[in-house]
Amino acid sequence: MQQLLDGEFSEVRNLVKQRITKPDFQYYDGTDVQVYRRKVLDWLKRIAETGIGRIFMPRYVGGEDNLPKYLAKFETLAFHDTSLLVKAGVQFGLFAASIQRLGVEYHHRKYLPDAAAGRLLGGFAMTEIGHGSNVQRLETTAFYDRETDAFVIDSPTYSAGKTFIGNAGEHGQLMTVFAQLEVDGEHHGVHAFLVPIRDDEGAPMPGVTIEGNGLKMGLNGVDNGKIWFKEVRVPRTEMLTRFAEVTPEGRYRSDILNPGARFFTMIGTLVGGRISMGLGGNSAAKSALTIAVRYAARRRQFGPPKGAPETLLLDYPSHQLRLMPLLANVYALDFALKHLIQVNEGAQSDGSRPVETLAAGLKAYATWNTSRTIQTCREACGGEGYLASNRFAALKADTDIFTTFEGDNTVLMQLAAKNLLAELKDKLKQGGSAQLARFSLDDNLNLLAKRHPAFTQDKSEPHLLDSELQLDLFRLREDALLVQGATELQKLTSAQGLDPYSAFTQLQPELLELAQAYIERVILEQFIAKVKSLPDQSLQAPLKRLCDLFALTRLEQGKGWYLENGVVSGVKSTAFKRLVTRLCVEVSEEAVALVDAFGIPDECLAAPIAL
Amino acid sequence: MQQLLDGEFSEVRNLVKQRITKPDFQYYDGTDVQVYRRKVLDWLKRIAETGIGRIFMPRYVGGEDNLPKYLAKFETLAFHDTSLLVKAGVQFGLFAASIQRLGVEYHHRKYLPDAAAGRLLGGFAMTEIGHGSNVQRLETTAFYDRETDAFVIDSPTYSAGKTFIGNAGEHGQLMTVFAQLEVDGEHHGVHAFLVPIRDDEGAPMPGVTIEGNGLKMGLNGVDNGKIWFKEVRVPRTEMLTRFAEVTPEGRYRSDILNPGARFFTMIGTLVGGRISMGLGGNSAAKSALTIAVRYAARRRQFGPPKGAPETLLLDYPSHQLRLMPLLANVYALDFALKHLIQVNEGAQSDGSRPVETLAAGLKAYATWNTSRTIQTCREACGGEGYLASNRFAALKADTDIFTTFEGDNTVLMQLAAKNLLAELKDKLKQGGSAQLARFSLDDNLNLLAKRHPAFTQDKSEPHLLDSELQLDLFRLREDALLVQGATELQKLTSAQGLDPYSAFTQLQPELLELAQAYIERVILEQFIAKVKSLPDQSLQAPLKRLCDLFALTRLEQGKGWYLENGVVSGVKSTAFKRLVTRLCVEVSEEAVALVDAFGIPDECLAAPIAL
Repeated sequence: MQQLLDGEFSEVRNLVKQRITKPDFQYYDGTDVQVYRRKVLDWLKRIAETGIGRIFMPRYVGGEDNLPKYLAKFETLAFHDTSLLVKAGVQFGLFAASIQRLGVEYHHRKYLPDAAAGRLLGGFAMTEIGHGSNVQRLETTAFYDRETDAFVIDSPTYSAGKTFIGNAGEHGQLMTVFAQLEVDGEHHGVHAFLVPIRDDEGAPMPGVTIEGNGLKMGLNGVDNGKIWFKEVRVPRTEMLTRFAEVTPEGRYRSDILNPGARFFTMIGTLVGGRISMGLGGNSAAKSALTIAVRYAARRRQFGPPKGAPETLLLDYPSHQLRLMPLLANVYALDFALKHLIQVNEGAQSDGSRPVETLAAGLKAYATWNTSRTIQTCREACGGEGYLASNRFAALKADTDIFTTFEGDNTVLMQLAAKNLLAELKDKLKQGGSAQLARFSLDDNLNLLAKRHPAFTQDKSEPHLLDSELQLDLFRLREDALLVQGATELQKLTSAQGLDPYSAFTQLQPELLELAQAYIERVILEQFIAKVKSLPDQSLQAPLKRLCDLFALTRLEQGKGWYLENGVVSGVKSTAFKRLVTRLCVEVSEEAVALVDAFGIPDECLAAPIAL
Repeated sequence: MQQLLDGEFSEVRNLVKQRITKPDFQYYDGTDVQVYRRKVLDWLKRIAETGIGRIFMPRYVGGEDNLPKYLAKFETLAFHDTSLLVKAGVQFGLFAASIQRLGVEYHHRKYLPDAAAGRLLGGFAMTEIGHGSNVQRLETTAFYDRETDAFVIDSPTYSAGKTFIGNAGEHGQLMTVFAQLEVDGEHHGVHAFLVPIRDDEGAPMPGVTIEGNGLKMGLNGVDNGKIWFKEVRVPRTEMLTRFAEVTPEGRYRSDILNPGARFFTMIGTLVGGRISMGLGGNSAAKSALTIAVRYAARRRQFGPPKGAPETLLLDYPSHQLRLMPLLANVYALDFALKHLIQVNEGAQSDGSRPVETLAAGLKAYATWNTSRTIQTCREACGGEGYLASNRFAALKADTDIFTTFEGDNTVLMQLAAKNLLAELKDKLKQGGSAQLARFSLDDNLNLLAKRHPAFTQDKSEPHLLDSELQLDLFRLREDALLVQGATELQKLTSAQGLDPYSAFTQLQPELLELAQAYIERVILEQFIAKVKSLPDQSLQAPLKRLCDLFALTRLEQGKGWYLENGVVSGVKSTAFKRLVTRLCVEVSEEAVALVDAFGIPDECLAAPIAL
């Protein structure tokens, strides 16, 4: 099973594990922030030595041009301290990757080797005090000064200050700064510039004001900071020019003529970050589950009267119901995230909409699942779970911000839903609005009824455990919500004359539901495909159980919708719950092996209750 | 509105507020645990000066014999640092209160005045390494030695060590120790003894080994510790003898002959602790909501294109849907907890089953709600919510353990459900099993149908906003789950011959559902009663909206059950959601006033984003 999860990159995973299990990587409890930051910086440099930062880079700077391999390393690094993970993510996945994706060979050769080696520390200065989610309205300006052939970077207001910028607080030297470009009095929207913020001695550069963000809930090994610029000049060549440039003649030029499209292409860099957050979060959830499951397989409490030994926590139905569906989620997300990595590799262009949709939805779904999983695991370990030594404290506090990082989850879910509606619109344009019927609930129900006459009533096990049927139910819901969303949107814009912004705002609750249905369908689809692809029955059987548990838990939780719309009857929906309870028993019997397959080294788990 | 929430004890609430807003009560970020603990100890002594610890004590030791007044103070103290709250809870609510409730006048006069003044620091040594939830199986022994007329307290194994004992780590001098009593070779079960653990210089007493519990997720201002006893002797008079004693002649004697009943009467002391946890948790949730709502009423992000100001977070439907139902919950729980305090006052005996049921269920429901509320509020404040200065970090980490403290929530919910089934059994004994029909779903549905012919279909607003009808739906579900549970239990024990332990274990999922239905019914009942009792329309209208929002959010979340059982139709259930969305808009318009009514001083809120 571990082989299956490790996939083709087991070698680099093992390389990372060798490093993070060495004695000098022993955890620090973080109580002295200065000591912690120095330790994390030191760890980062040692991790850089494994070549992790180079993997995704072009070959002409010594890279392997292999993003999936980098992501496998990142995912494995997430079994260790999360501050290190995030500092590495900032340095390689945001700073270096933004140079790679937004810059051209000139920038690559100039900066990437040092960035990969951890010699040049940098950050990704996008978020501002006044604007986090709404990046298009950033206030920082980059004014092109023809006379000196340079850009003047400026923070016109307090709220234009960059904030929460990783590596800015203490160690960063160079930042990828996002600012509104102005050339010859014309505004061209947000572009990226490389701006030095500290000199070799670590002092702020002239015109740069830096302030630490102060103590955070977690991740205190990362030095986040605020930055303001006052007429800071950088040469014209320091603009990252893959998608747009200011020519030596001082003219603005871009192959992407539509400013909106240009903006979204540029922030396509965020996709890598979103995949990383999903992977990192899921690794943290794996750590939490390994600790909680191992504890539950050893800890006894209560039991039959008179002398018999007390019962293992893992044998209690209530305990199984808490942990086993979460175990299924983590497996499900593992396969879905690998699918996302593949899809991202296959995408022809940057900023491809289907990739953006999937990355946004999966990032949100996975990181919310991380928070919920760690919380439940902590509670399932009682007082022991509250001790810092048992790791939940750090796991929970550190990953909490993953739901905000790289895009607020609620905003991302809305983005995913909007993209789905836009895609539907495109399809309808091609096929005529008669196409809409293909997605309508009535039509889908009719199709189902033809294939399975007793569909709404059938509560037999073979039926409920039929993957195709489970998937049909997921698809049905997604399609219905999609059509419903499109119809409502149409009403609001055409009939009521609302502008798109106001219409989408009013539709937020529906959008969130649609995005959830979509992402759950993708996850189930990938899980089923993975199970089918396995030749080995010894792997297939336990994975099929996890897949069923995922599907039936979602159906049980969402039964309200299915009942409301007449897709299933009450007789059938009560069977969901019975089956979930039974699957939990079955999965609990192999739970220890299933968490061991995550392959988390004991040195990383570290929790005494798990060893 | 604040007057309504403060109730009859506004004076003592203000007294506490005066104290905790003074400059010497300014928060400390907790990074140096030693500094933090000294500060919390100092705060505790200052709080003791307000007389908080005396209020619930008997008049002959200077008390007021007024538990509700003490609880009002405790609830208000919870607006400040949670380590202080928990340290005060340990000192007064657990240590002193256990002497008061389990001891007699001799113990009261000897210890209570010093305990109330904070001169004698103590703790409540129940939990052991091997036994947290299953207190009946504690391993610590108390052997009565006739020769010296003393008890010998002993920890026979490593796992018999007391653990997570507040005040044990550094400051505690005397502990209420729970141990298995043995007299003349006969075992009498768990009893409580007062055992000194430190001398006046703070050194451990002979035979006592103390170890700190180490760094925790939160509450690091509280010195939790482990304690082992090796043949530690205390005079016979140091047994707390309200419910059982060893006579001067060395005979065991108790008015409660049944050992099980005796045990449950003694741990009835836990009810006060459970009420406190519910109150403290709800206060923390109020702080989080105040911060998040005030921020949402000021922070703008995204908006219509072209020049218009961006939109307030509070005006987004998705933001309203996240926060407004939580605001309704906190109000609902406020009234329900006040009801519990009243019921507890009215109870004739210690260990009364209805009080235990209500306290267990409400403690679990309220503290889970606390965790969820703080988490959601943190996310709703984005990156700002992650900064320690904005308070969510401490609120979240500190109150996380409330779901475990004073009884693990899952265990408590099962306890509540078991009690409900036992009560039903008693009722049936009196009325014959024909009584069962009175609770059955079919009968209840028939009754409803008689009163409201179109009940399952009616989706009109007056119908859905009719409090009595809402309550009918809640009751119907509770009754149905109760009957179902009783029937299943009957099957498992009679037909399948399982022992009660095994039968209840198998029924855990059903018990959890029943307990939730029960507690939600109580909460709604109390909320409705509170709204009705108000003469003032200006208070009644906003509270009715919150009450409706609570009821309809629960109905919407639980619609699966109602649809499954044919109580409502799909047409009706879709109306739940529409109404929730609309109520959220309405409540959001007065949200700032509603959080301000919690009356949390700005010095306590402290979060820059809330001021």
